[in-house]
Amino acid sequence: MAQAKRPAQTVFRGAEVLNVFTGEWLKGDVAVSDGVIVGVGRYEGEEEIDCRGKALVPGFIDAHLHVESSMLTPEALAAEVLPSGTTALIADPHEIANVCGLPGLRYMLDAARALPLSLFVMLPSCVPATKWEQGGAVLDAASLSTLRDDPQVLGLGEVMDYPAVCAGDPGLLAKLEAFSGRMIDGHAPMLSGGGLQAYRLAGIETDHECSDGLETLEKLRAGFAVLVREGSAAHNLETILTAVQAAGIGTGRLAFCTDDKHIEDIRREGHIRHNIRRAIALGIPAADAYRMASWNAARIYGLRGYGAIGPAYRADLVLLNDKQEAAVHAVYTSGIRRWTEGEPIPSPAGIPISAELRGTVHVRPSGQPRNIRSLALPVPPDGVMPVIELIPRQINTRRRDLPVPQRDGFFAAGGDFLKAAVLERHHATGRIGLGVVKGLGLRGTAASTVAHDSHNLIVLGDRDEDMLLAVQELERCGGGYTLVRDGRVLATLPLPVAGLMTDRPADEVNSLLRRMSALSRELGVPEWHDPFQTMSFLSLPVIPELRLTDRGVFDVGEQRYL
Amino acid sequence: MAQAKRPAQTVFRGAEVLNVFTGEWLKGDVAVSDGVIVGVGRYEGEEEIDCRGKALVPGFIDAHLHVESSMLTPEALAAEVLPSGTTALIADPHEIANVCGLPGLRYMLDAARALPLSLFVMLPSCVPATKWEQGGAVLDAASLSTLRDDPQVLGLGEVMDYPAVCAGDPGLLAKLEAFSGRMIDGHAPMLSGGGLQAYRLAGIETDHECSDGLETLEKLRAGFAVLVREGSAAHNLETILTAVQAAGIGTGRLAFCTDDKHIEDIRREGHIRHNIRRAIALGIPAADAYRMASWNAARIYGLRGYGAIGPAYRADLVLLNDKQEAAVHAVYTSGIRRWTEGEPIPSPAGIPISAELRGTVHVRPSGQPRNIRSLALPVPPDGVMPVIELIPRQINTRRRDLPVPQRDGFFAAGGDFLKAAVLERHHATGRIGLGVVKGLGLRGTAASTVAHDSHNLIVLGDRDEDMLLAVQELERCGGGYTLVRDGRVLATLPLPVAGLMTDRPADEVNSLLRRMSALSRELGVPEWHDPFQTMSFLSLPVIPELRLTDRGVFDVGEQRYL
Repeated sequence: MAQAKRPAQTVFRGAEVLNVFTGEWLKGDVAVSDGVIVGVGRYEGEEEIDCRGKALVPGFIDAHLHVESSMLTPEALAAEVLPSGTTALIADPHEIANVCGLPGLRYMLDAARALPLSLFVMLPSCVPATKWEQGGAVLDAASLSTLRDDPQVLGLGEVMDYPAVCAGDPGLLAKLEAFSGRMIDGHAPMLSGGGLQAYRLAGIETDHECSDGLETLEKLRAGFAVLVREGSAAHNLETILTAVQAAGIGTGRLAFCTDDKHIEDIRREGHIRHNIRRAIALGIPAADAYRMASWNAARIYGLRGYGAIGPAYRADLVLLNDKQEAAVHAVYTSGIRRWTEGEPIPSPAGIPISAELRGTVHVRPSGQPRNIRSLALPVPPDGVMPVIELIPRQINTRRRDLPVPQRDGFFAAGGDFLKAAVLERHHATGRIGLGVVKGLGLRGTAASTVAHDSHNLIVLGDRDEDMLLAVQELERCGGGYTLVRDGRVLATLPLPVAGLMTDRPADEVNSLLRRMSALSRELGVPEWHDPFQTMSFLSLPVIPELRLTDRGVFDVGEQRYL
Repeated sequence: MAQAKRPAQTVFRGAEVLNVFTGEWLKGDVAVSDGVIVGVGRYEGEEEIDCRGKALVPGFIDAHLHVESSMLTPEALAAEVLPSGTTALIADPHEIANVCGLPGLRYMLDAARALPLSLFVMLPSCVPATKWEQGGAVLDAASLSTLRDDPQVLGLGEVMDYPAVCAGDPGLLAKLEAFSGRMIDGHAPMLSGGGLQAYRLAGIETDHECSDGLETLEKLRAGFAVLVREGSAAHNLETILTAVQAAGIGTGRLAFCTDDKHIEDIRREGHIRHNIRRAIALGIPAADAYRMASWNAARIYGLRGYGAIGPAYRADLVLLNDKQEAAVHAVYTSGIRRWTEGEPIPSPAGIPISAELRGTVHVRPSGQPRNIRSLALPVPPDGVMPVIELIPRQINTRRRDLPVPQRDGFFAAGGDFLKAAVLERHHATGRIGLGVVKGLGLRGTAASTVAHDSHNLIVLGDRDEDMLLAVQELERCGGGYTLVRDGRVLATLPLPVAGLMTDRPADEVNSLLRRMSALSRELGVPEWHDPFQTMSFLSLPVIPELRLTDRGVFDVGEQRYL
């Protein structure tokens, strides 16, 4: 069929085809059989697709994301991203790993094999994320090695604990050693100089945390491939591409990623397609923008047969109405049409979710419900406490040592002060950390089991009774988001899969999220805060200045519990 | 040491360093420990090398060559190429494989491990080269697979029999299948259209046979990495780079190779260094030229830790006096200095050569010396024979059906007609092919055991007695080149290793070759023919129009023995 001696199964006829090898747009027919491109040139096919006036590009690759951030199962997320041209995902399932350990990873790998797109896995390197945290599981080099040779596994996921790398921490070095010769992803915001050289020397090959132009150039020069992130929270594309353009060094070592992108954003602006369009708008030649979305990522991750339109490559193809706008007409993976413009997003059939991944909310130390006394927070004699002050539009917090409202020697929420509690939810230890948060504006209670990276149960509220009710509500539904006020549950989004993901259709989730967002506003939360997003970072003891974990208030700068 | 907390072993201080990742030349110190670059930046070292005013680039990689073409052992060739900056060779040992089979390959792999540079091996895919040939060995998919996982092996060597690929030959497809997912080199001069697409679809990823601009562009567009060849016989660099520049498609998918380059040429103009200098002279930016010589080749062949100056890369470094001229000052591999300008070429200690590789000339069918009658060539009644006519400066020949000089019904050399004989030399079958050659001008006899690809013993002469003497001379010395006239051996270059390579120092070989070249001129051979080069291709039944093998005269166009 490559030699046109007999018709190919499917021929994409007459498109302007992106040749990623040369960066040219060339008219031609693309012949596909058994899911593989057999030739580009002049072909006839049993089925012929008229592509005249359209452009054909390789399917888009998200070089780094966390599926769990979408709150959808892999199959539901796949359905959401396919219509915007994404045909391969390189995922680090470290959220589910922090809750469920190896069974969580096996669930992701099993799901990956049943998808209409390609899902590759980078095994989470930092579970738990830091020595200050304790989640549902600990993954050491030996346990990670049991999955190393799975065909979906490309290597080791983002090595977030860069101080441990630079300090030569034996446990982390053992993981790096176990994945020597495989791909190892980095995560080193603002790491520079000798530390950055050491981090690269340790075998780490990518970084997706560039938020500064000089940082970008230094990382590229040190040999890192830079993943240009444009997600729901982080927007690094303009900074990175502007720096690279100004330095005149080409885009060959750049690929695109989203890291964390919510469904509403994917539906509004598209997935990797959005990165492409933004890049083109910044003056990057269209061919280079599409190469970043395909060929570059495939080469960085050593994905043979991915990321190009040429013989021996998988027929993962995106047909565009307009290449400058990345306007998608139809999307194919392995030569099979998955979506055409005008069609609704398909509802996928999921793979079964085992009991191990359900019922992960264990907050009762002796089988008894929590009682109200466990939430009592004594105030020191001087009345002053370290308060976690939120900053609008940032995930950083500020430490403020302030006099707080109290009753009978115990903190009493009021003014803009809320009580915060983090309940260990994996091993039913009953451990609980309490603190004071300022700046959310909430009049009511919000609780969530999505709290990086240990994903304990976090609850913020102005009445202890409501906070207890919120905990009970999340126990009942196996985890999720809930809003409570005056003894009444206002709305709940159940996330029964590990307390992180839903098994419901994305539409239902989306409308519920919108309702909860509106409710938050009614409860006084200003538009610059999403209470659940804010809470999700409030436990992560690597972001300055103060955090709250199940062990209490942690000062990140001083690296100690207060 | 990467963090400059203690001094590195060696620091290259103050050079203008090529950053292959960005294409920039940046001032900096390069810190090396245990043979590996640990950092680029500001460093102090136990040993410091003052590099101010010089440029530092990664060691050069020859992406495709045959060590045997140098007639030197791997260690002697390594000594010759190191002073011009070559620090890694990707070799296809198909000459020795045709003579010695797996033991020949094992010799090359063992030699590779003991060299001061890196020698990687692509396992020969076409032994014998075609179904018309029978050499010392047959390497099928099963026997090649026994060496597939050797650490020096990168994949499968040049798949020369492209018609068999396009025809779906089962034996060849089995080899391609056995190396699926590994690197597979191509060799497909002027292959185009659907055939080229099929050849790429078969898993073949490179080509080093581009001799035409449009051919180059078509191969790049089909997804081949193109190896830009500049050897002793083939000079493709200008054609390829001119085409690529005119098309404006960048040099990212190009690497350099020599394929076959003789010692005298290496000494005169350098090895890969010559490709670099020629590229720069054609207007390729110096950074891109050096990238073709290092980073590009390393990426094409998946050589982790090769081809860049950055942390985690091998300290294979070339210090240049002048980067435009590729003027080498000193060469380092694994951080160890191997050569500095002004020093003589080192004389390496070789690895032992086993008896299996010596004494490979077996031309006596029953243990008895060949007699003169075996050279008798009867002439048909009409006196006309198919004559192999040589063409000045080409390896193609022309078929001419001409009346030939004869005595008593047998061909008798005279005028410009010589007798040619090819004696099977591997299995002592006694098989002999006889023919008539026109156009060499030789008055005397020349014989050689270097005759692609089967490397039988080939002899051309004007007197049967001299031809017999030449055969006996090569029997005596285990193969090589010899010149004979009037019952006297004029000169012999012994090639006792497989009849292809010498174990003598390169200087001695070089002066002997010069002497034999001068002798050829005295014997009437015009300057446009080297009798040994000409003879070396006269047996290869893939080059038009007529060839002579141990089975007789073969018409390449008609694909049959006459």
